[in-house]
Amino acid sequence: MSITVVGSVAFDTVETPAGRSERCLAGAATYFSLSASFFTDIRVIAVVGEDFGPAQQAVFDARHIDTRGIERAPGKSFFWQGSYLDNINEAKTLQTDLNVFAGFEPKIPAAYADSEFLFLANIDPVLQRRVREAMPHVKLVAGDTMNYWIKDHRPALLEVLKGLDVLLINDTEARMLAGNNNLVQAARAVMALGPRILVVKHGEYGATLFHSSQNGVAEQTFRAPALPLEQVVDPTGAGDSFAGGFFGYLASQPELTPGAFRRAMFYGSVMGSFACERFGTDRLQQLSRPEIDARFKIFRELTHLD
Amino acid sequence: MSITVVGSVAFDTVETPAGRSERCLAGAATYFSLSASFFTDIRVIAVVGEDFGPAQQAVFDARHIDTRGIERAPGKSFFWQGSYLDNINEAKTLQTDLNVFAGFEPKIPAAYADSEFLFLANIDPVLQRRVREAMPHVKLVAGDTMNYWIKDHRPALLEVLKGLDVLLINDTEARMLAGNNNLVQAARAVMALGPRILVVKHGEYGATLFHSSQNGVAEQTFRAPALPLEQVVDPTGAGDSFAGGFFGYLASQPELTPGAFRRAMFYGSVMGSFACERFGTDRLQQLSRPEIDARFKIFRELTHLD
Repeated sequence: MSITVVGSVAFDTVETPAGRSERCLAGAATYFSLSASFFTDIRVIAVVGEDFGPAQQAVFDARHIDTRGIERAPGKSFFWQGSYLDNINEAKTLQTDLNVFAGFEPKIPAAYADSEFLFLANIDPVLQRRVREAMPHVKLVAGDTMNYWIKDHRPALLEVLKGLDVLLINDTEARMLAGNNNLVQAARAVMALGPRILVVKHGEYGATLFHSSQNGVAEQTFRAPALPLEQVVDPTGAGDSFAGGFFGYLASQPELTPGAFRRAMFYGSVMGSFACERFGTDRLQQLSRPEIDARFKIFRELTHLD
Repeated sequence: MSITVVGSVAFDTVETPAGRSERCLAGAATYFSLSASFFTDIRVIAVVGEDFGPAQQAVFDARHIDTRGIERAPGKSFFWQGSYLDNINEAKTLQTDLNVFAGFEPKIPAAYADSEFLFLANIDPVLQRRVREAMPHVKLVAGDTMNYWIKDHRPALLEVLKGLDVLLINDTEARMLAGNNNLVQAARAVMALGPRILVVKHGEYGATLFHSSQNGVAEQTFRAPALPLEQVVDPTGAGDSFAGGFFGYLASQPELTPGAFRRAMFYGSVMGSFACERFGTDRLQQLSRPEIDARFKIFRELTHLD
C-alpha cells in the first residue's frame, strides 16, 4: 500500500568529526521517502527551488518515488547548515534559510488521493493539519514534530495530534510535550492528546513503542535496540530514516498486528543505522533490500535470548 | 557456586522527588550481595562501624549472606548523602564521610578461599588489586569502578584491569577510561586493557555487553533493555544491583556459555529495575525469586519479535 509524505526537501551543509559535506540533498521528506521506498510505494508532497535539478530528481527516480507532488518554485530550496563537532548526538544549527519553504502551500495531486498511509514529517503543524484534513480516509496517519513547534506553536500542534494514530518523537520532545520527565508518564500524557501509539526515539540507545490501552487490551510497551556503530559519519536524518523504515514496513504488511509493529520498530532502527554511515542520503541511495534484511537479522541477534 | 564480594557497606541519606530516606543501609557490597543472593551463595568482605547493629545484620542474615568477612571497627560506618532532586538520573553528592572505611584493610576469611567467583565492587583500586591477588584461583573475576578512580588513580586502576575478566561500568566511565566518545571504539580500547568482557550500563536505556574477539571467534555485542519504570523512587544502587543479578546468575550456571551471558544481562536489568522501586535496599529485602522470574519474562517480552 502506498504512503503519501509531506515535508521538506532541502539542501544541507554538515560538519561532523568525520568531515564536511556541502549542500547535499536532504530534508525530512527526502530521508523518509528514500528509507520507506525499500518497503512500499512512496508519494511526496514538498516544494523546491531552482537549485533542485536533474541530479536531485534522479535520486528520487532511482527509488521509483512519485514526485508529482513536489512543486517547483522560483528561488532557492530550503537550506540548513549544522555542526556535530561538539556533540555527535546533537546538531548545532549554524544557518537556516527557509527560502521557497516560507510560502509553502501543500498541494495534493489527485493521483495521491488513494494513499492508505499518510506521514506528516516535521513541518509547521498548520500545514500538517491541512494535509491531514485533505486526506480523511487514510488507514493510518503518523507524524513527527520538534521542540520549536512544541514550545512556540502548541495550540496548532495539539490540533494535529488529535488526528494522528502514531507520533514519532525523541526523548526530549516527549518530555517537553508532556511536561513530565518520567518517560512512562510522559508517554501516557502524550497519548491522551490523540495518538494511540507513541514511538520515542532514544538515539544511540534505540527506541520505545508505547501502545495505549484500548477496548480492554492493556497498555503495551516494546523496545527496539540501536546497533552500536563503530563510526557515526553523519547522524542527520537518522530519525526520519527510522520513521521511513517503521512506516514503510507497516504499509507493506497485510495486517497491522502487534507483531507487525514490533518488526516495524526493528526496521526503523535498521534504517536509522544505515543513514548514519555516510553523509547525507548517500548510504540510503546505495542500499539494497538484502542488506536491509541482513542487518535486521543482526538487530534480532543483538537482543535475542537462546 | 559462591561469590566473594569486596566493597562498601554503608549508610545513605537520599533525597529524590519521591521523598527522603535517612541513614538507610546501603553501599555497593550491600546492594550487590542482596541482589546476587537470589541466585547463589554470597560472602562479603567489608568494614563497618559501631552503628552497624542487629537490625543491619538481620538484613544480610535474612538472605543467608555470609558476613564473616565484615569487620567491626571502632567509629562510624561509611556515610554518603546525595540528592536526585535536580536530575533523577544523576546523584549530586552532598556529603561523604569515609569514617572506618578510611583505614579499610580487607581481610579474607579462610572459609572464603574456595569461592569460584570474585566481585570487586567500586573501591580504591589498590584494595581491589590486593583482594584479587589473594584469590588467584577464582574462575571468573568481575569489577566496577567510577570516574574518581579513572581520573585520579589511573595507574592503580590499570593494574586492576589486567586481572579482570569482566568490567561493569556506565557510559560516561567507559568513554572517560578509553578517552574516546564512540561506544564501540571505547569498548575495544577498554578490553585491550585487560577485561575480555565489558558491560556498559546505559541507565534507563539498558546495557550493552561487548565480548572481545578471541581464538578466531569474532567480537560479539549484546544489548539488554531496561524496563521503562513509571516511578523511579531511588536510583541509588541500581548499578550494583545490576551487577549482582548479572554475576549472581552467571555463578549459578553450570557453564559460562554465550547464552548464559545473555540471560545474565537480562537478570542484571531485572534486578536494577527492582532496586529503583523503593528507597535504599527496601525492595531487594522484600523480593522473591518468583517475582524476579516473572519480571524476566516481561523483559524478554519487551524486545521479543514474533
